[in-house]
Amino acid sequence: MRILAVGAHPDDIELACGGTLSKYSQRGDQVVMAYVTNGNMGHKEIPPEELAQIRKAEAKRATEIIGAEMIWMDYADEWVFSNRETREDFIDMIREARPDLIITHLPDDYHPDHRQVSQLVFDASFLASVPHVKTTHLAHEKVTPIYYMEPLAGQGFNPTEYVDISDTFQLKRQMLACHQSQVKWLKEHDNIDFLEFMETITKFRGLQCGVAYAEGFRRANVWPRVVAQRVLP
Amino acid sequence: MRILAVGAHPDDIELACGGTLSKYSQRGDQVVMAYVTNGNMGHKEIPPEELAQIRKAEAKRATEIIGAEMIWMDYADEWVFSNRETREDFIDMIREARPDLIITHLPDDYHPDHRQVSQLVFDASFLASVPHVKTTHLAHEKVTPIYYMEPLAGQGFNPTEYVDISDTFQLKRQMLACHQSQVKWLKEHDNIDFLEFMETITKFRGLQCGVAYAEGFRRANVWPRVVAQRVLP
Amino acid sequence: MRILAVGAHPDDIELACGGTLSKYSQRGDQVVMAYVTNGNMGHKEIPPEELAQIRKAEAKRATEIIGAEMIWMDYADEWVFSNRETREDFIDMIREARPDLIITHLPDDYHPDHRQVSQLVFDASFLASVPHVKTTHLAHEKVTPIYYMEPLAGQGFNPTEYVDISDTFQLKRQMLACHQSQVKWLKEHDNIDFLEFMETITKFRGLQCGVAYAEGFRRANVWPRVVAQRVLP
Amino acid sequence: MRILAVGAHPDDIELACGGTLSKYSQRGDQVVMAYVTNGNMGHKEIPPEELAQIRKAEAKRATEIIGAEMIWMDYADEWVFSNRETREDFIDMIREARPDLIITHLPDDYHPDHRQVSQLVFDASFLASVPHVKTTHLAHEKVTPIYYMEPLAGQGFNPTEYVDISDTFQLKRQMLACHQSQVKWLKEHDNIDFLEFMETITKFRGLQCGVAYAEGFRRANVWPRVVAQRVLP
Amino acid sequence: MRILAVGAHPDDIELACGGTLSKYSQRGDQVVMAYVTNGNMGHKEIPPEELAQIRKAEAKRATEIIGAEMIWMDYADEWVFSNRETREDFIDMIREARPDLIITHLPDDYHPDHRQVSQLVFDASFLASVPHVKTTHLAHEKVTPIYYMEPLAGQGFNPTEYVDISDTFQLKRQMLACHQSQVKWLKEHDNIDFLEFMETITKFRGLQCGVAYAEGFRRANVWPRVVAQRVLP
Amino acid sequence: MRILAVGAHPDDIELACGGTLSKYSQRGDQVVMAYVTNGNMGHKEIPPEELAQIRKAEAKRATEIIGAEMIWMDYADEWVFSNRETREDFIDMIREARPDLIITHLPDDYHPDHRQVSQLVFDASFLASVPHVKTTHLAHEKVTPIYYMEPLAGQGFNPTEYVDISDTFQLKRQMLACHQSQVKWLKEHDNIDFLEFMETITKFRGLQCGVAYAEGFRRANVWPRVVAQRVLP
Repeated sequence: MRILAVGAHPDDIELACGGTLSKYSQRGDQVVMAYVTNGNMGHKEIPPEELAQIRKAEAKRATEIIGAEMIWMDYADEWVFSNRETREDFIDMIREARPDLIITHLPDDYHPDHRQVSQLVFDASFLASVPHVKTTHLAHEKVTPIYYMEPLAGQGFNPTEYVDISDTFQLKRQMLACHQSQVKWLKEHDNIDFLEFMETITKFRGLQCGVAYAEGFRRANVWPRVVAQRVLP
Repeated sequence: MRILAVGAHPDDIELACGGTLSKYSQRGDQVVMAYVTNGNMGHKEIPPEELAQIRKAEAKRATEIIGAEMIWMDYADEWVFSNRETREDFIDMIREARPDLIITHLPDDYHPDHRQVSQLVFDASFLASVPHVKTTHLAHEKVTPIYYMEPLAGQGFNPTEYVDISDTFQLKRQMLACHQSQVKWLKEHDNIDFLEFMETITKFRGLQCGVAYAEGFRRANVWPRVVAQRVLP
Repeated sequence: MRILAVGAHPDDIELACGGTLSKYSQRGDQVVMAYVTNGNMGHKEIPPEELAQIRKAEAKRATEIIGAEMIWMDYADEWVFSNRETREDFIDMIREARPDLIITHLPDDYHPDHRQVSQLVFDASFLASVPHVKTTHLAHEKVTPIYYMEPLAGQGFNPTEYVDISDTFQLKRQMLACHQSQVKWLKEHDNIDFLEFMETITKFRGLQCGVAYAEGFRRANVWPRVVAQRVLP
Repeated sequence: MRILAVGAHPDDIELACGGTLSKYSQRGDQVVMAYVTNGNMGHKEIPPEELAQIRKAEAKRATEIIGAEMIWMDYADEWVFSNRETREDFIDMIREARPDLIITHLPDDYHPDHRQVSQLVFDASFLASVPHVKTTHLAHEKVTPIYYMEPLAGQGFNPTEYVDISDTFQLKRQMLACHQSQVKWLKEHDNIDFLEFMETITKFRGLQCGVAYAEGFRRANVWPRVVAQRVLP
Repeated sequence: MRILAVGAHPDDIELACGGTLSKYSQRGDQVVMAYVTNGNMGHKEIPPEELAQIRKAEAKRATEIIGAEMIWMDYADEWVFSNRETREDFIDMIREARPDLIITHLPDDYHPDHRQVSQLVFDASFLASVPHVKTTHLAHEKVTPIYYMEPLAGQGFNPTEYVDISDTFQLKRQMLACHQSQVKWLKEHDNIDFLEFMETITKFRGLQCGVAYAEGFRRANVWPRVVAQRVLP
Repeated sequence: MRILAVGAHPDDIELACGGTLSKYSQRGDQVVMAYVTNGNMGHKEIPPEELAQIRKAEAKRATEIIGAEMIWMDYADEWVFSNRETREDFIDMIREARPDLIITHLPDDYHPDHRQVSQLVFDASFLASVPHVKTTHLAHEKVTPIYYMEPLAGQGFNPTEYVDISDTFQLKRQMLACHQSQVKWLKEHDNIDFLEFMETITKFRGLQCGVAYAEGFRRANVWPRVVAQRVLP
């Protein structure tokens, strides 16, 4: 299988589904991690351009931990909008990734970029299968299931499926720890110890399904994305 | 009564509310069927421009079966966006149709065009009643109820009102069958026998309300669109 | 049509659906008003036995205003429980009433008697149609739709259907005003002007559907109680 | 695995999850089918005692088709109540079956027996694991996941998991067809062709998840019944 | 505390949260009332430009009643769209107001402007705290709770928190009455006595929480906007 | 204020709202902790009668930590049913406690006793205010708000209000640790480290509302239990 995870900012994927991606990777599936923005607004002092470079390098290290392919879309942080140009860009990104399954943000998440990315992925992944919609890459041959990952702090989120990440929790932690600039910014901007924050959530989801650490997901329940098998690992 | 049904693509209306429209028509109401896009992306081999012509002719035949007026908005398939220009276009379309009731897509449907059309109809049909909003046609004198039709395959859709279409099921079938290009494309693109697909859904909705065939709907529950009578046939 | 309204206490029906029952009555339908308990706990000073007599007389007057049949089940106020004996009693009551439509409490209402009555009506009205279930009256020939009326103060209640009671509001007011003992008790026990309380709710539901006064309802959405026509007046 | 399906009446299980049980059976799991009532009320003319015998034989044949164990609890049809005696009985039944997974009615189904059985199974299956709760059989060593099957006609039911039963649809049909008394009664009592009714639902659920025939389920989302793997076949 | 209320049109805030704003004001908090559009479409005869002036004056008087600061964004009525330019404008407006709490429209309200404003406020109020996002004013130091006010006629709205406005009801009434042009337009366009309309809703919300008059709210339940104290007055 | 917390088993209250109760106590409110069952089934080897004694002593110690009054109802563990006798017992218990606020189990919790207790408290607390309903204690003068505490592992629970228990977390931990028999049983029966389990949940709820440790609650939204102030500490 080919798994595509699309996050608005570097570290979103690592935080919410890093353990699941590690698990896919360990069992031999190919993971593609797409970062929509370069996260250049994510700091109080480091100037945007410099920060974008730092974050790209951080993301690169994170993907390498599990041998994932990386797609760096390089959008400006905080300003993702769903319009024709961006949608075409997402179509092409999905056609490049050629996924059997997509994981992305919940449509009701807290951050505007997360919401826009969720909608863009939803919309573009259908159009990616339409042959007469032309982009750089050829049309993808399928419309895949979409799984929504947990929003920040899990507010109002009731997973319908869980992935036991007890075996890959340490990998997830390493992936998240790659994002040092963000770990610091969240400490300053929101007074959050990001790694402990993540650990609390994965432990909480773990105790909900009887394991040490887990990640929770909700499927996009629209045709033709619902299938009669489990596609999560 | 004047009934306006707005579908993103030729065949959307026929599939989800063709039986209801036939019933309106049979009892003497005037039906207007508005097709937003020309469906020009709906095929693997037929080129877009040629396909748009074919689909317009197919739609024309479908409307003729029940004597409906046809509004062909001719938007490019897959690229409907809610912006000022499009909204003004929808306002004018609604003012032309002058409906007492509108049927359109569910806001949470599977296809981006469906979602955008749903929102555009919702927004434009309020503004259509505002005199100082100027378009070609004069302001409509009312803000009408909106009914959402069933999304594709009925995923997550729980109708609150049903229409018994046992008497008009054959008309509906004929209307849908007019869309031969689409019947074929869905066979190829999604491996779906469209007519049987439709029959299964209408039988399922029928058994939910104790008749042979039915269509299900959900009202937009916002002021001033809720009324104290049944407006469905 | 025969309409059966079942309320836990004298005045419950009048408060929540008195205008609708009046409307049924005015158009020629036969209304049956069933009072489950005698309301004998509804006062601080009047002793239970005496109160039960008073409330029966009050209820009688209320039913007479719209020419409704009255069924007085005479259960002790506050102690309705769903068990076999009570369910059989409800089956027989329903078979006596022979309704085409039932209106009763919401399953999630604030008062234990309301909740139990709602469940009992739901359960008994199915069994009332089973020939081998024997009670005094013969099996009823149908399983009817059930409509849930508004819970006290409308907490968390979103009607899916409205009835315009502008023409019967005064009748409703008279019906409710018959319950003088209760009007006083609510004043003392809960500091509520019951008639004004009722008027506020019916005005609120009225403005939601664009009329002067309205009552809101929600259908029990289970097989075989859903039909493809409006059955409310 | 050992799978326990608990239905209120003979044919409930066959209708709602017969294809899934067949699939479990075909892959080597042991299925136990528990019938709570003897269905003795399910006819207009055949007297209850005689009918109970007929239905037991019908159920027996249905279980034999897939080599399932049968538990016949022999409760009187229409009068299942959740009380201490019945709950103990259910505890013992579950301890006898020793399931790894339980399938039963939705708590909000249309029939009182279905609702009571759902609650009883939920309650008893927890207590079955408590050693000091004494019944004939020894305590079960686990509290298993519970899956709710589709209510009659699927009203308001949005499955979260689907099972592709294309390969076992014919077995399911045979199982259901064993219940000849019921097929006839539903024809008379509710004017329903039961086998076609079932086929429409399974086709509808099939098209929702992209297969020919499917059954839909919803998990009981309470601790400790949620697990991080798929347990449906 | 500093309270920012953002309404799409002059009178939206007064109608839905005028009593709450008055209460904040009376206890010494500073209220800022932001009007997004100039309401220039809100009349049949008065031409847009003239109307905008009238409404600005009306709004000014309303804010003066409670000593609120006024922000007049002067957008054209009916045409608010969430795009980069507008979002930046909202960011700057929020940075100017520097709120500890924001009250605005429900995302699912009936009017397109209300919906867009709700989304814009949600999005902009997060970005307002990001230092590298540059606008005229300096970055705000916090991401505040957002409370959604009641949509028009309260359709489908179940408040989770109530504010007792019995003491400030008359102030609210005065604030709303300032909008004479709108009071007349609603009379003409929708046949609504706006002041009575408002009174019915506040009485209804009052009886739901046991006071004479109340306003209901729902919190935006996303990180980091949820706090462990009551922030409403 | 007088706060009544009602839990089905010794340790239920401590686990789900011990920090909140500690906070009430610290600010001078009087807390009453009612234990419905004696928890005598909660062990594999200790026989029921002996266990009941042990657990009563454990509960006593827990209440003493915050100076709470203790009500020991001494019901047999696992067999709580809502019937007239039990309801009268609960009415009397509530009249004894004379609360201004009640905290109890969610109606949809995982354990049958929890569900029954939730319903009993809901029902009895209304009847406790009715003067002619006679029990040992005099009628209570009010119908109080009810808050539902978090179900085990927080499955499907979205708090609407949070209490910051950072200052009382250690007290909560001590209270829970008093239940040594249960800490061991959960270790054996469910392989759960109860204290760590509790810590994970309170940390998770803490990060949702921006504090170190929190407990989440949901109000019973029915008349007359909704008030316009915060009643949680």
